[in-house]
Amino acid sequence: MNTKQVTVAQYGIGPIGAEIARLLLTKPWVKLVAAVDIDPGKIGKDLGDVIGLGRQTGVKVTKDLPSKVDVVCHSTASRMREVDGQLKSLLESGAHVISTCEELSFPLDKQIRETLDAVAKANKVTLLGTGVNPGFVMDKLPLTLTAVCQEVTALEIIRIQNASTRREPLQRKVGAGMTVDEFRKAVDAGKIKHMGLKESLILVGHGLGVEFDTVSDENIQPIVADREIVTKYLKVAPGQVAGVHQTIEGTGQINVRLELRMYVGAEAVAADKVIVKGIPDLEMVIKDGVHGDRATAAMVVNAIPRVMKATPGVLTMDDIPVSFR
Amino acid sequence: MNTKQVTVAQYGIGPIGAEIARLLLTKPWVKLVAAVDIDPGKIGKDLGDVIGLGRQTGVKVTKDLPSKVDVVCHSTASRMREVDGQLKSLLESGAHVISTCEELSFPLDKQIRETLDAVAKANKVTLLGTGVNPGFVMDKLPLTLTAVCQEVTALEIIRIQNASTRREPLQRKVGAGMTVDEFRKAVDAGKIKHMGLKESLILVGHGLGVEFDTVSDENIQPIVADREIVTKYLKVAPGQVAGVHQTIEGTGQINVRLELRMYVGAEAVAADKVIVKGIPDLEMVIKDGVHGDRATAAMVVNAIPRVMKATPGVLTMDDIPVSFR
Repeated sequence: MNTKQVTVAQYGIGPIGAEIARLLLTKPWVKLVAAVDIDPGKIGKDLGDVIGLGRQTGVKVTKDLPSKVDVVCHSTASRMREVDGQLKSLLESGAHVISTCEELSFPLDKQIRETLDAVAKANKVTLLGTGVNPGFVMDKLPLTLTAVCQEVTALEIIRIQNASTRREPLQRKVGAGMTVDEFRKAVDAGKIKHMGLKESLILVGHGLGVEFDTVSDENIQPIVADREIVTKYLKVAPGQVAGVHQTIEGTGQINVRLELRMYVGAEAVAADKVIVKGIPDLEMVIKDGVHGDRATAAMVVNAIPRVMKATPGVLTMDDIPVSFR
Repeated sequence: MNTKQVTVAQYGIGPIGAEIARLLLTKPWVKLVAAVDIDPGKIGKDLGDVIGLGRQTGVKVTKDLPSKVDVVCHSTASRMREVDGQLKSLLESGAHVISTCEELSFPLDKQIRETLDAVAKANKVTLLGTGVNPGFVMDKLPLTLTAVCQEVTALEIIRIQNASTRREPLQRKVGAGMTVDEFRKAVDAGKIKHMGLKESLILVGHGLGVEFDTVSDENIQPIVADREIVTKYLKVAPGQVAGVHQTIEGTGQINVRLELRMYVGAEAVAADKVIVKGIPDLEMVIKDGVHGDRATAAMVVNAIPRVMKATPGVLTMDDIPVSFR
C-alpha cells in the first residue's frame, strides 16, 4: 500500500457519495482522479465545492467516467434494477467496483447476479456491495462472531439506532412526526422501509452455510412516542410516530432473526447487539451502536485494498476480510 | 460444501487436539480419516477411545500421517521452533494446514516464515495459525470491528477470562494458588506466560496497515486474591496469586494496547472488550468473554472451508473471512 497510490473514482455525489469522497481525500494511498454525477447543477464544478470541502480538489465533476481507474466507489441508488446498467459499464471499463447499493449486498435476483458475475470475471475485476447496514453490523460482524462457535442454533441481531443524531432526510424517512395512520399508508406505499434487511438475513444464512426453510415477510411497524421528542429538525408529539420497527426471520437448521429499530429519542437504548445461541452462547453489544452514514463511507473506503486482492466476480462481505486501512 | 466431504487429519491429540477431533466428528462435511500423535500410549488405539468419545471411530492413532488428506488440523506445541519441521512435512504432503501453534498466528521470524511460505506455495496449499487467542478475540475480531472507522488513533483490547471455569492445567498455568514470590520466579523462568500476545499485537498493526514505532516488552504481573477463592481443582487464600495480568503495547500512528487478565474468581468481571478511539469511537463488549478451549477448536474447524478457498502460502487471520460452518 505504501508504494503506489490506488486511482479511485467516486460515482454518485449524494450525501453518502460526498461522505465517501471526503474520506477518500484523506487517504495517502488513494489518488481520487474522478467524480461522476448526473446532476447538471454539479457537473463541471470542482468536487471540493460540491461536497463543501472548503478547498478545491482539482477534480471536476463529470457526467461519465473520464478515464480508466483502479477502483470505482459507487453510491447512487438502493435497488439493483436502478444500478445494474451503471455497474455493468463500470466493470467493463476494467475497474473494481465497491457499491453502497443495498440490494447488491446479496443480489437476490439470480439472473442479474450471474450476468454481473460474468462481466466482472471477463474483465478480471471484483464487484462488492457493502455499507454499515446492510454490509456490516447485521451481517458481516455477527457472521465473524460465530467463528468461535462449535454449534449455532439461533442468532438474534438487534440494531437500535438513535435517529435524533442523524440527518434530516433520515429522520423523515423513518416516519418521525407522522401520525400512525400516515405511517401505515407510507409503509403500504413502499415509502417507509429500511432497504437491505432481507439481503442481510440471506447473507447471514449463506455465510453460515445453511439455506432457510422459511423466510418471513418483512414486518414494518411504527414506534409511537410516549413523550414529546424534539430534534434539530423536527418535533414529535406523544402518540405520533418516532420511527420504525422492522423485523425479518429465517427458520431452519439455524434460526436467524433481525430486528431494526430506528427512531428519534432512542439515545438511552441505542446499541448494536448480537445474541448467539449455541456452543458457546455469546452476547455482544456495541454501546450506542455504530453511526450509519460515517460508517458506510468507512466500509467502502476500507474495503478498497481488500477488493484489490480478492478474486474476480461478484463477491459479498462474507467473501473478504475487513479492517480499517 | 454439500457435495463432497473434506478429508481431514488431526495431528496432535492433547487436550486441544482431542477437542478439535470431537468437533470434526460432528461435521457432516468432514471425513476424519487420520489421527496422529507421538505418544506410544495412544498409537494403535482407536481415536474414539483416546478422546473419550464413548464409541469407536474406525480411525486408529498413528505415529505419522498415513495418507494424503485435504486438510491437517495441527495442535502440538506453542513455539515455531518446535513445530516448524512438522508443518514443513505436512505441507509437502500436499495438505492445507491449520494450526493452533500460538507463534504461527503471526510468525515473527522472517526466515522461518519465508521458508514455510515457499514450501506452501510450491505445494499449492495454505498454512494458517488460528485459535481464540491468539487468532480471534484480541486480533481478528478487533480488526474486523475497525472496518466501520474513518479514522483510528488508538485501540485497547481487554480480555478478562475467568480461569475458575477452565481445566486444571490452565488454572495451574496462570499461577493460581502460588505465593507472589513463587509467581515471580515462575515468570522469570518463563513458566508463566500467555503465548501469542505479541503475535496478536503485531497482527493487529499489520491488519491496520501500520508499523509500530515502538513495541513494549510484555509485562507479566500477579493478580493477588483479596478473598478465598475455591475452584473444582484448587484453593487460593487471600494474599496468594489468583492468576496473571499480562500487557503489551505498540505505539506509533495508531497506539494499540492489549491487556489479558486470566484468574480464578473472575466470574463477575469476565468479558472481552474492544475500545476504539477514532471516528467513530466504539466500545464493544462480549459478556462473560469467549471461553478458550471450546472456541479454539471451533476456530480451527470453522476455518477449514475458508482455507480451502484461500490463496496458497502462509496466511494470517487478517487474510481470510471467518464464520461458523
